[in-house]
Order: sequence, then C-alpha cells, then structure tokens
Amino acid sequence: MTTGHAQLVVHANRPSSKLCTIRTRCTLRPRHANTVHRPIPTLRKTNTVYPTATFAVAGSEGDGFPSTDTDRFDVLDFHHVEFWCADAASAAGRFSFGLGVPLAAQSVITTGNSVHASHVLRSRTGSLTFLFSAPYARHCTAAAAAAAATATVPSFSADGARRFTSDYGVAVRALAVRVADAAEAFWASVNAGARPAFAPAELSHGFVMAEVELFGDTVLRFVSYPDGTKVSFLPGFEDVASSGSPDFGLTRFDHIAGAVPDLASVASYVAGFTGFHEFSDFTGHKVGTGESALNGVVLANNEDTVLLTLLEPVHGTKRRSQVQTFLDHHGGPGVQHLAMASDDLLGTLREIRARSSLGGFELLPPPPPRYYDGLRQLAGDVLSEEQIKECQELGVLVDRDDHGGVVLQVFTKAANLAFGVYPKDTVRGEPAGIQERWIRDGAPSRGAWAQPSGSCAAIKLWCSRPWERPTGLYDVSSVVASLALPWAG
Amino acid sequence: MTTGHAQLVVHANRPSSKLCTIRTRCTLRPRHANTVHRPIPTLRKTNTVYPTATFAVAGSEGDGFPSTDTDRFDVLDFHHVEFWCADAASAAGRFSFGLGVPLAAQSVITTGNSVHASHVLRSRTGSLTFLFSAPYARHCTAAAAAAAATATVPSFSADGARRFTSDYGVAVRALAVRVADAAEAFWASVNAGARPAFAPAELSHGFVMAEVELFGDTVLRFVSYPDGTKVSFLPGFEDVASSGSPDFGLTRFDHIAGAVPDLASVASYVAGFTGFHEFSDFTGHKVGTGESALNGVVLANNEDTVLLTLLEPVHGTKRRSQVQTFLDHHGGPGVQHLAMASDDLLGTLREIRARSSLGGFELLPPPPPRYYDGLRQLAGDVLSEEQIKECQELGVLVDRDDHGGVVLQVFTKAANLAFGVYPKDTVRGEPAGIQERWIRDGAPSRGAWAQPSGSCAAIKLWCSRPWERPTGLYDVSSVVASLALPWAG
Repeated sequence: MTTGHAQLVVHANRPSSKLCTIRTRCTLRPRHANTVHRPIPTLRKTNTVYPTATFAVAGSEGDGFPSTDTDRFDVLDFHHVEFWCADAASAAGRFSFGLGVPLAAQSVITTGNSVHASHVLRSRTGSLTFLFSAPYARHCTAAAAAAAATATVPSFSADGARRFTSDYGVAVRALAVRVADAAEAFWASVNAGARPAFAPAELSHGFVMAEVELFGDTVLRFVSYPDGTKVSFLPGFEDVASSGSPDFGLTRFDHIAGAVPDLASVASYVAGFTGFHEFSDFTGHKVGTGESALNGVVLANNEDTVLLTLLEPVHGTKRRSQVQTFLDHHGGPGVQHLAMASDDLLGTLREIRARSSLGGFELLPPPPPRYYDGLRQLAGDVLSEEQIKECQELGVLVDRDDHGGVVLQVFTKAANLAFGVYPKDTVRGEPAGIQERWIRDGAPSRGAWAQPSGSCAAIKLWCSRPWERPTGLYDVSSVVASLALPWAG
Repeated sequence: MTTGHAQLVVHANRPSSKLCTIRTRCTLRPRHANTVHRPIPTLRKTNTVYPTATFAVAGSEGDGFPSTDTDRFDVLDFHHVEFWCADAASAAGRFSFGLGVPLAAQSVITTGNSVHASHVLRSRTGSLTFLFSAPYARHCTAAAAAAAATATVPSFSADGARRFTSDYGVAVRALAVRVADAAEAFWASVNAGARPAFAPAELSHGFVMAEVELFGDTVLRFVSYPDGTKVSFLPGFEDVASSGSPDFGLTRFDHIAGAVPDLASVASYVAGFTGFHEFSDFTGHKVGTGESALNGVVLANNEDTVLLTLLEPVHGTKRRSQVQTFLDHHGGPGVQHLAMASDDLLGTLREIRARSSLGGFELLPPPPPRYYDGLRQLAGDVLSEEQIKECQELGVLVDRDDHGGVVLQVFTKAANLAFGVYPKDTVRGEPAGIQERWIRDGAPSRGAWAQPSGSCAAIKLWCSRPWERPTGLYDVSSVVASLALPWAG
C-alpha cells in the first residue's frame, strides 16, 4: 500500500475553551475506502467514563475541544524527562549547547551525592526540564553502600542504569509528570493495573516520588510537591549559575512519543491506569511518507497538558515501517521522540543550526532554490516573503493542509531531530499527513512528521540513541536521507 | 610526610639538538635527605641499551637532552586517542565545543558502518586527534553479524565497549601511535613480552592496525600507513565539513598519563616491549601538593615525540594519594590525563572558559585579587602586566621554579581539567613540584600539576570519567576543591 495516502486533517481553528467530552479531536479524511475504525481495548473494568473509542471519519468540525474528566488522579503537567547515560555531563553539556537549554542544577559527588551524577537543563520559561543521570563507579558505589541515601533521585539504580545504557545507549528512562499527590497517583495506578516500578518515597520539603512501568524499560514517574516550593528541581539538587547561557526559545514539551510493537495493548494499559482520554489517533499507512507506516494514538490528561503519543509499526509497506526500524535499533519499546514547543521556531532553528558543526545537532542542508519557488505558490498567502527567505536560508521545509494550516519542518542529517511548526489555532498532537500537494506537485516531501502545536510553534526532537545510533534509519529519517540525496553536496 | 616538599627542577634551557644518550633528564633537588634512588626493573633480557635507571640527585645541568636509540620498532608520533562511549556523538560534540577541536570525520551507519558509531575531532594543526566510538544496538549488531566487516576500527568490540562503558563510563580505550610498520611493532612487542590485544589487520590504502595491552583495559594501538596518504584518518571514515568551527589552539598531545597501582611492574612491562627510554621520573610524596603523593615515570620513544607517563599512589600521606583516588573511582588502572599543548595558552583558556557555563568544561573561579598582587612580585620579571591581568581575569594560577620557569595553571571546578604552561625552552614532562614560594608566601597553591611543554604552552586534560564521575575527588582536584573553598562565590 504505497500509494494510498490519506490525510489526517487537523482543525484549523481550535477554540481555547473546552465545551464537552469529545474524545476524537481529529478528523480523518480518507482518500480511499479502507479507513480503519479501530477500537482501543481497555483493561479497565470499573471506569465508565473511558469508552472503547471509535473515530469519526469526517465532519466533526465545530465540535470544539472540550475538557474531559476521566483521569484517575490529578495530573498537572510534564515535570521533566530523565535520560540515563554513561556520561551525564557530556550528554547534558551537548544538549544545553546544541538546543540552547541552560544548565540549571546538579547533584553530583561534590554536592554530596555519591550514587549518581545528575545534571539538569531548564528553559528560561521554567517548564522544559531535562535530567541526565549516570552512575558513579561501581567500586565507589559499593564502598559508599552506606551512603545510598545520598541519592537525590531515590529510584536511581546504578546497576540498572548500567544495564540500561548498555542496552540502549543514551535514552529516556523516565517521563516525569507533576501530580497532586504522587503516592495517591501511584496507588491509584497500581490498583488499576499499573505495574509498580518504585513505591512512593517521601523526600524533604514535601516532595514525593513514585514510578510505574510505562513501556519497555521506560517508567512514568510521579512527582508531587507543595505549590510555591523554593526547591527549584528536586531536594538535594544545587542550582548552578547559568547567567549568560543562551536560551534558544524552546518553551515546553508539546508531547512525548513512545514506540511499541503492540499499540492496542499498551494504549489500553496506559489509558487503563491513568484514565487518560484519547486526544487523537491516526491509522498507520495513511500517515507518513507513503513508503513506511505506523499507527498511533495520543493519550492526554484532563487538561491536555500531558500528551503521550504511542506508535506502532504497520507492516507490508514498500519501505520498512519507521517505527519498526526504531524498535529494531533501539532494541525494544522506548521513547522515540520528544516534541518541544517554541514561540519563534525560525529563531530557535537559526540558533540550533549555528551550532550544528560545532558539536550540536546537525541539520540537513537546504533543498534547492526551486523548492522555495514552489513554496511561494503554495504558502505565499500565509508566509511572508521574509519568512520564506528565512525558511530557505535555514533549509526549512513547508507543508500545508487543506484548512490553511502550515507546518514547517527541518530534519537532522542522519539523526532523529525534526522540527515542525503550525500557525496558531491549529491543534496539537501527532502527526499530520499533509503532504499530498508536494507529492502531486513533484516537490520533495520528507514525510509527514509535522509537529502541530497549540501555540504557534513546536520542535520535535527524535530521541532514543539519537546521535550516534543508527539514526539514519530511524523513523522518517530514512526517508529523509533518501530524499535528501539529490540535494547533498 | 605532609611538609616535606622536594622540588623537581626542570632544565630551563633545553637544547633543541640531542647529543648523547642520557636517560635522566630531570634533576631532583631534595629538600630533605630521603631522596629515593629507585631502580626500574625490566623484563628485557636482550636489550643492552636499556639500563636499570637511577637518577642523578643534582647537577646534570648542561648535559643536554640527547636522543636515544632503544626503541624496539620505529615510533613516529601520537596518532589518536580513542574514547569508548555509550553516546559517541554527544561526547564528541561536547569535546569539540568545549575544547575547540573541530569535528573532522565520522564513520557511522549512514556511511556504511553498522558496527560502531565513531566521530573524529582534529585540531587545525592536524596533530591532535580524538576518536569517540560507541556500539550500535545489540539487536542491530547481531542482525548485522554478516556486516561485521563494515567496522572501520577493526579491533572494535561492541560487547567489549558495553562492558567498558559500564565499568568506566567514558574513558580512554586506546592510545594510538603511528609506527613505521604496525605488524612489525606488534610482533616485536609480543616477542618482548607484550600481551597481545589485537593481531595486525591490513586495512585498505596500506593501513595496518594492531594492539597490545597497556594497563588495565587500555591498549596501545599501532597504526601504520604510507606517507602522503589521502586518507585523512582511517580508511572508511568520511570527512565532515567543519568550516567555521573554531579551533581554540590546542595543537598536539604533550604526553599521556596512566594511573596504575604498581608502577615498577607496569613501567618495566611497557619499557620492556617498547624499548622506550626513561624520559624522567619523580618520587612520590615529593611531588604534588604536600598532602597527597605519587610516584611517576615518563617513558619516551627515541625521538621523544611519544611521552607516556605512569603514575602510582604513595600511601601514608596526610591526604589520600590522588592516584589512589583515581584508581578507586575509575575502578582500576586507566588513562588519568591527557596533556595537550597550546601555543597561546591564555587565548585557548579564554575560549574554553567562555564555554564553561554553556555545556563545556567548567573552570574554578579566579582567586581573590591579593593573589595577583603577590604574583606581580613573584613573576613580574617574566610576565607582563597585561599577562598578569589576563591571568587574573581567567583565574590562572602562576607558579615558578628556581630556574626562572613559570607555570600557569587552571583547574576545573570539581572536574579533572587542568591547564599549565611553561615558557619556551623548559622541558616537557611531568610534573614539577615548584610551589614552595607560594606556600612560603602564604599564597594558595593548588598543587604541582604543572604542565611544562617543549613549546611554549601545554594544556592538561584530566580524563577518565572526568565529567560526571566523582571528579571532585580525583587527583589534584580534591586539593583544588579544598583550597578553592575560600574563593567560592
């Protein structure tokens, strides 16, 4: 099924208010008849709010995007994402430098932590936080057995981290969300079928942390703490001076996506213990490049502040599914990408690109000028000439949906970093398969991994062994690489 | 023995020509009577050139620094240093960014290597080269068993690298030297007692590679290739564009130092199979901070282009030996630091410091102004007022020996990066314990890890788990940290 493109059309005008409980927020516009109405099985027996979802084929425009009330516990927002590393300072340093997210805090042996070295990056907005952690030497850890209490991330396991990095390289270990009460969230989850990973631990200053399994070796971490706390990250972390550190404008996580071999069971498991509602879903081979395919579902908390995307491969396509490729190279389920928002995507991109050859994240070279001639016809009514020129300069690709939505994309060179932007008032979520025009017009499309955003911009970081792993074959990157060939050099 | 400082005095005027075979190139000037004349045992039976060395106590000035002719095979120079990593791109990126050594080449899955991801940094001079390598995913590697031949570093072991990074974090796996004939070097070494690590392999373009064990899990790698080769690093590596990448001025490796628990046996082993002569040695508690101690020997090839320092701890000092601390935290023998040269140390430092808070290498804050008032008295005849001001601005510490040699030093904040410079015409090697004046004058001395250089400057990078490991306790850093406390923020 290599030519059957469907369009996943996103609402061009998303109301800011939430009106009612509608679970399906995307309209699937099939170009062919084989639209899939796929029920999402659920393990839950008691929750009557969460239905077995089916999807409207078309015509839900104007329904708005109401709030829901299905969460099993109060979820406020993303808190941080933790990478387990062999060298936390180098990983943190490169992310900080390459993506422009300042170093903010640390917990290392010199601050009293003899179990793990952890470095925190935080955007100026305060709402985008990365944590990079690595174990101290085995000998040191053993000698400091009595000092195990010095760990500031109580769930940290030195041996676990060693196995993890041996299996996955540098990858996301924990997706942390702030909840009203981490102990309550943990027990509500476990009682609803979640596999426990770390029982609630009380830290100082009223912080509580707990973890349940999410997929593969990735955990969902619950963190709770009092409002107005003076603790900037977690108790025991020391702030580091970052004055003068540039911030490229990344503001928050838009969504975080995991790749799994079995979407239905994982979605059912996660929705089951969280109560998260289905923000959107999309069927496989319709989305993407037309050569490789996936199925996906986006789960969200009541307030849609935490969006968790789950992806599974679709087989039988011309090109191997990008999700299957991820699963193969990652060695199993894992966080496949982090989507981050920016209020000034072109500005953010400009900074990131300026660091590409200095050790940051390398982006593909711009397409040839004719690409941008076509762009003027396609999106000249939305993008100014100046913006188009900036897109050309930065090598940004532009795509468009039938509702006027515009997506800007940039891909890394042989790596899993992609950027996308939608104008305001289009929905967040994932993904949009809106490349028909380019294919029809003969313009090169690099896949539909557009990153719509509730604000005006979002940046998608394809992660999990992103930088030295076989990233050229991951996900859309494989298509990117092949399409990029004529532009090379 | 915390107050017994001896001075290792280096020759202030080292002639550029080499006149005769003198093995001891440093003059040990004892302040106390307990000077150690320590024979270096050797396993070699046949080589009559390499003696059991003893050291002159004083008075060898004017002897010059002649060449030797003891090498068992032709050794040209350092070729590269390879770090084994879990995330090669992040480590390479941070080194490139933080130290200003441009990304130069890579061998990754998109260039045809499905075994390991490798990134090369190379200074503009072409003679300082880092290699960072990480294994691809286990699944991927297994699936690509037939593609094992795609490895461009034929000795790379994916499982070995996983064990290595699990044991050591990011650390030096291979110290590579260019030799006239790698196969000949290998067999000469093995016949002289070297433990083989990787039998000679012929690559394309006339390249040959082989490895023998050095100490711990570190190997000495032999690389040979034709003069004038067009291969910029190793066959199969693709150059990457680095135009615009800044080079902070690091030019070459001055020396590379390993920490071992048993200096005599390791020095004997290495000298035995290489034929390297003893460039200098220094006895333990005399060198350093007066609170912790070490013994050391510097081995060199005939031309003194490859300097290999070996260090062992001395016990019974007030403070735990910095070498023992390294061994404890590293988990055994390993490369403890890389010393690199710069022709403009202050300029190099300025660039490095400018990246400190951006994800690069963080340096200690400058000492208080009174430190530099004292400096004017001590070194005003050698350093210009402008240089002293620049030292103050950059937080550079200055020390001096009795022959007019000046050493500039900077230490990282809780990490193993130290910088030192000697003016021209002082000898290279390691280390110089020339801090008496500062101690006498009450000025804070941060240890004697000066980095003398044959050119005008050298930078010493303390490595092996340097950045997120318990670096605050490594080596001189522990002393640095304690002395730095009064200066802290």
